[in-house]
Amino acid sequence: MTSHPFYLDCDTGIDDALALAYLLASPHADLRGIGTVSGNVSAAVGARNTLDLLELAGHAHVPVALGAHDPQAGSFGGGAPWVHGANGIGEVTLSTAAAGLAAGTAAEMLVRLAHEHPGQLRILAVGPLTNIAAALRLDPELPALVQDITIMGGAAFAPGNVTAVAEANIANDPEAAAEVFAAGWDVTMVPLDVTMSNVLEESHRQELLASSGPVPRALGEMLGYYFRFYESQFGRACSAMHDPLAAALAVGGVSAAVAPVVTVDVDTTSGPGRGQTICDLRGRYMDYPEQPGARCRVVLSLEDDFAPHLVEVLLSVSESTTAAAASAVMSPA
Amino acid sequence: MTSHPFYLDCDTGIDDALALAYLLASPHADLRGIGTVSGNVSAAVGARNTLDLLELAGHAHVPVALGAHDPQAGSFGGGAPWVHGANGIGEVTLSTAAAGLAAGTAAEMLVRLAHEHPGQLRILAVGPLTNIAAALRLDPELPALVQDITIMGGAAFAPGNVTAVAEANIANDPEAAAEVFAAGWDVTMVPLDVTMSNVLEESHRQELLASSGPVPRALGEMLGYYFRFYESQFGRACSAMHDPLAAALAVGGVSAAVAPVVTVDVDTTSGPGRGQTICDLRGRYMDYPEQPGARCRVVLSLEDDFAPHLVEVLLSVSESTTAAAASAVMSPA
Repeated sequence: MTSHPFYLDCDTGIDDALALAYLLASPHADLRGIGTVSGNVSAAVGARNTLDLLELAGHAHVPVALGAHDPQAGSFGGGAPWVHGANGIGEVTLSTAAAGLAAGTAAEMLVRLAHEHPGQLRILAVGPLTNIAAALRLDPELPALVQDITIMGGAAFAPGNVTAVAEANIANDPEAAAEVFAAGWDVTMVPLDVTMSNVLEESHRQELLASSGPVPRALGEMLGYYFRFYESQFGRACSAMHDPLAAALAVGGVSAAVAPVVTVDVDTTSGPGRGQTICDLRGRYMDYPEQPGARCRVVLSLEDDFAPHLVEVLLSVSESTTAAAASAVMSPA
Repeated sequence: MTSHPFYLDCDTGIDDALALAYLLASPHADLRGIGTVSGNVSAAVGARNTLDLLELAGHAHVPVALGAHDPQAGSFGGGAPWVHGANGIGEVTLSTAAAGLAAGTAAEMLVRLAHEHPGQLRILAVGPLTNIAAALRLDPELPALVQDITIMGGAAFAPGNVTAVAEANIANDPEAAAEVFAAGWDVTMVPLDVTMSNVLEESHRQELLASSGPVPRALGEMLGYYFRFYESQFGRACSAMHDPLAAALAVGGVSAAVAPVVTVDVDTTSGPGRGQTICDLRGRYMDYPEQPGARCRVVLSLEDDFAPHLVEVLLSVSESTTAAAASAVMSPA
């Protein structure tokens, strides 16, 4: 697999930080730009965290554009500090990066990158889909210009995580998600079905903390906070791996086992199903016959054990960064 | 387990016929009345089939009341002749019963039976929930008068069967279903999760056909039609066992393995989720902690292999019926 130009859209966020580090370490991704969106934290806080992580990892050259603060309908609800901490990265303090934001919006950056790499750009979206929908409105030809889009979001057979059926990224902007799923491009959807069933354990976190690299260590610190939230979900200190799993599937670091290509509707009503990704999986009893016109590959299970792979890749991040950077991580008090 | 008075609400229907036969054979059910509703067939055709089956089984004394022809919103859509045949029982012709319909509506019968057996009556509803909702409106005290209600309907983790998320009984009258699930009584929901994963095979059908009893033989004939539809769902001649499984769970003939008690909302919007039973199964990662106020037990898996049990019970039906009745079944041409 060769290296592809990538645009990352994120709401950094602890697991976004893991996904970013994973992409930076992958030989198959050439990260050309990052846009932020409100989700786990506000778009502005997400941009701050992204810039600081890039500098820590020695990749300060990757441009970061500020994206949408509010979803299409309504306004940003304040994020999920009980999951990610008030600062979005588990109360870990990073040195403030020297680099500032790129000019223009995240949606503008995405459209520009798509034109710069026609047919080649790949999108990884691990936050609400507000920026992606905005880019589709800026340039309706976008789907023909990009190679594909991988989305962490939604739930197929699995229950939701903000309502009984809705996952947070989709629930935070169902109208944008509906536009993105309907845009007529190749979508890989990485739903809670796989992200909740492939977890990172305390032993994995300890491996990151034992690293000499500042990025793995910082991620290990952040995961301490994240694990405390997931203890309420799983009954033990561990965590789901939403965003890094989407990154790994996008670059081929892990392979899907069951991943039917089906039609997906997003519920944009105001009813109890609002924000649900309605995946047409009625073919399950016959090994998913082809659905004409369907373009969304819904990942339901993996071939591989993801956690050891993730740890291995994360440990390889920023091996070349300086001791100065290494001293720039401060643990939470 | 002692025998309880039962009210059956059905839209007979091939699998309704199996459920009816199962209840008649069960020592734990004392079937005191049956109401019909439009679903698989019209309420009137369902009543005709029910009366004829009762006579064939030697139970012509069980009263049958005609229920609602149309759902609360809209009108009856014509049923599912491609599943159940134009006559609802797989084009099998039964002798026309001498008994006529009971006076009054199905809803009135249910309310009367509930008052005749306060705290004891059990409801088994295997069609759209129009009559049950009508009974709740006739007598809002109904939930306090009945022991419990078992509903074949809905889908929890499983896909739907009329849309990606909606099961037919609920989809045929979502407004009625919403009232019934919200009525504040103990509900056992038997969703597609279990009815599609416990199937009847051709070998089971042959056992019924080889019976000397007219009822098992008639059911075996009907199942030939039903199997042809399910071949499109499963890729082989077999069938789901929606309604008889609900009957068996209601009388304790089989036991649920995983069956959390959770809140259930019915989607009554006009969006893509209309008719979905939204079960709050977010506790799955922690073995379903108790949900305060929840009253709906959602059956997700069984302890037992259902098909052999079903065949055994069906073979015991109408062993005492006469040779005259035995000659009353005519196979489809």
